[in-house]
Amino acid sequence: MTRVYLDNNATTITDPKVTTAMEPFHSEMYGNPNSLHSFGSEIHKELSLALDRLYDGIGASDNDDIIVTGCATESNNTVIMTAYYELIQNGDKDTIITSSVEHPSILASCKFLEGQGVKVIYLPVDEDGLVSVEDLKKNITNTTALVSIMWINNETGMIFPVEEMAEIAKEHGAYFHTDGVQVVGKMPVNLKNTKIDYLSLSAHKFHGPKGVGGLFVKEGAPLLPLLHGGEQMGGKRAGTLNTAGMIGMGLAMKMATDALDYELSEVRRLKDKLEDALVKIPDTFVVGDRKDRSPNTILISVRGVEGESMLWDLNKVGIAASTGSACASEDLEANPILTEIGADSELAHTAIRLSLSRFTTEDEIDFVIEQFPKAVERLRSISSSYAKVGGIN
Amino acid sequence: MTRVYLDNNATTITDPKVTTAMEPFHSEMYGNPNSLHSFGSEIHKELSLALDRLYDGIGASDNDDIIVTGCATESNNTVIMTAYYELIQNGDKDTIITSSVEHPSILASCKFLEGQGVKVIYLPVDEDGLVSVEDLKKNITNTTALVSIMWINNETGMIFPVEEMAEIAKEHGAYFHTDGVQVVGKMPVNLKNTKIDYLSLSAHKFHGPKGVGGLFVKEGAPLLPLLHGGEQMGGKRAGTLNTAGMIGMGLAMKMATDALDYELSEVRRLKDKLEDALVKIPDTFVVGDRKDRSPNTILISVRGVEGESMLWDLNKVGIAASTGSACASEDLEANPILTEIGADSELAHTAIRLSLSRFTTEDEIDFVIEQFPKAVERLRSISSSYAKVGGIN
Repeated sequence: MTRVYLDNNATTITDPKVTTAMEPFHSEMYGNPNSLHSFGSEIHKELSLALDRLYDGIGASDNDDIIVTGCATESNNTVIMTAYYELIQNGDKDTIITSSVEHPSILASCKFLEGQGVKVIYLPVDEDGLVSVEDLKKNITNTTALVSIMWINNETGMIFPVEEMAEIAKEHGAYFHTDGVQVVGKMPVNLKNTKIDYLSLSAHKFHGPKGVGGLFVKEGAPLLPLLHGGEQMGGKRAGTLNTAGMIGMGLAMKMATDALDYELSEVRRLKDKLEDALVKIPDTFVVGDRKDRSPNTILISVRGVEGESMLWDLNKVGIAASTGSACASEDLEANPILTEIGADSELAHTAIRLSLSRFTTEDEIDFVIEQFPKAVERLRSISSSYAKVGGIN
Repeated sequence: MTRVYLDNNATTITDPKVTTAMEPFHSEMYGNPNSLHSFGSEIHKELSLALDRLYDGIGASDNDDIIVTGCATESNNTVIMTAYYELIQNGDKDTIITSSVEHPSILASCKFLEGQGVKVIYLPVDEDGLVSVEDLKKNITNTTALVSIMWINNETGMIFPVEEMAEIAKEHGAYFHTDGVQVVGKMPVNLKNTKIDYLSLSAHKFHGPKGVGGLFVKEGAPLLPLLHGGEQMGGKRAGTLNTAGMIGMGLAMKMATDALDYELSEVRRLKDKLEDALVKIPDTFVVGDRKDRSPNTILISVRGVEGESMLWDLNKVGIAASTGSACASEDLEANPILTEIGADSELAHTAIRLSLSRFTTEDEIDFVIEQFPKAVERLRSISSSYAKVGGIN
């Protein structure tokens, strides 16, 4: 059976070369790199290469830190809790500014801090799914501790103006964090040219393994460990290093940045081809302008078709899509992004996310172009609501 | 060159069968298990088997939780921070009781909470390296939130009376946590017969992969996520599940518990053989009585020989040992356990930890029995302090 994986914003296939590269670090070179004997030291060279690849991939400077974590959720929590303890509780700041469409790990951390008495401002998104620089300017003050805005939204693929926002944060004495999980391998990242203080990474979003992430920390930016304990990562993140994971993440980063041209040309072309075909279906709506969007993501609403039903129908023919973030997918709620951008409730329940990767083939896209409209037709034919508003049937 | 790995309390070789079992979950069955399509659902059966193996391995009841984390350091931090937020800040408790010889992840978390105004009591160890039930009884009150005592000490291998301590905690309305990192695969664990509320696990300490751990949470015990975010793990630990890691940890748990008889007979026999040989070297001292000690661990002090020097000398002939916890091994300080048990400063600087596993062979032990005394002789011959106190030279 044909199987087409178009849920790459949830997780990606680990590049087989990455899987192979990790293999020796389980049962052969298994030492703890903190140990002083040869089983520990023999892996230092490989770890150092992996770290170099991470620095190169995001354009970090030598004096910046990149901390290896267990996942981007951990990285995000680390930054939010640092802002709380270091800048608010033990400092003279009182506010965190974020957006209403961040990943659950940012929104839930901020909600937790609201319970601790911290003021959190959630910038809205406009009808194109964009956060505006003007809104940040209106809300930021000299008591803002941290601004945390994702670089590319996981659901819509919309690219947020984080570099400009980081400049504004800096002008007001605030630190700037970006959840960069969706940007690696989709757009060039060169942090040394920016005022970004923190950037969260997740290996499994760019064809690396699950269970390992990263956190870039600019020289001079405060960092309180979320995991207190040993002196690993220069005292910034305790816990035995996931050596295989770090080596896998390093190689995945190199391959993702090496493949950027392909992503920005071929993956984009396939995505555009798919999008062009899908918007020909009447009563559909794609969120956001292409020019402001990741080369791999389409969030499409199909009036009259409940998102989960569509997902099941596509799944039956072997197409894997999503109704939104897998991190929040256990309930059948309205897509929160569509709600945020002001879509009506029906549309908000009809969103399907299709996210490609460099492993997506033209044949796969042609297959989806053939199957997607059939699924829409099937589901609209049994939809009571769609007939009423005058659909295609 | 011969290589002998006797640093299994720092980390272990991933059993090759575990490495093989994890392999398909990187580049073949790579879906996010939270996704609703077949790439997500096709791994549920394997994950369910892994979870069953974890429950069986530690004798958890169906209504208890086992949360998959990134490492035991994360598990330990989660419990300490839960006690702080749920029982102290939002409750009527005010104290945490732990021991002075816990893993750095417990000690550093507690130190952080002391900065937040929490009272922390550190129970001492006696000259045998044991924490006493009497000391707990003397210190616990009805405002104790949590008692956190490790099951087996990572440096000495001493087994602490956690089951009895959990009973005492319960009598005073306190929750009981044990850092169980060193107990899995070394002693039978059957939590359903105990009053233990929380137990931390680390896969890489029992021949599973690095980068994945676990946290047992008894039915009814409070748990605040350390990683706020998505609804993974029933809302108790956000972050995309490390599927390969969880599957590896499950198999490693099964193999470790299946191998318990071997550990308690053969590994213990090899350890005893080594210990018998080493204590014949004059002016040596092994911490703790064998009957109260893990079957795999020897912490030996060798008067006149600085621990780091000994480690380097052993390393030159291919023997990997440790001067103590790899989590705190970047500085040349006195072994904290020996300091705690009241050893003089010189002895505290001469501790070498040798920790075996089911992968350790008799030939390897014979090689160490041959090489260790030679290293001692070499180093004592150049030691100015040892000659003064009247050593073997």
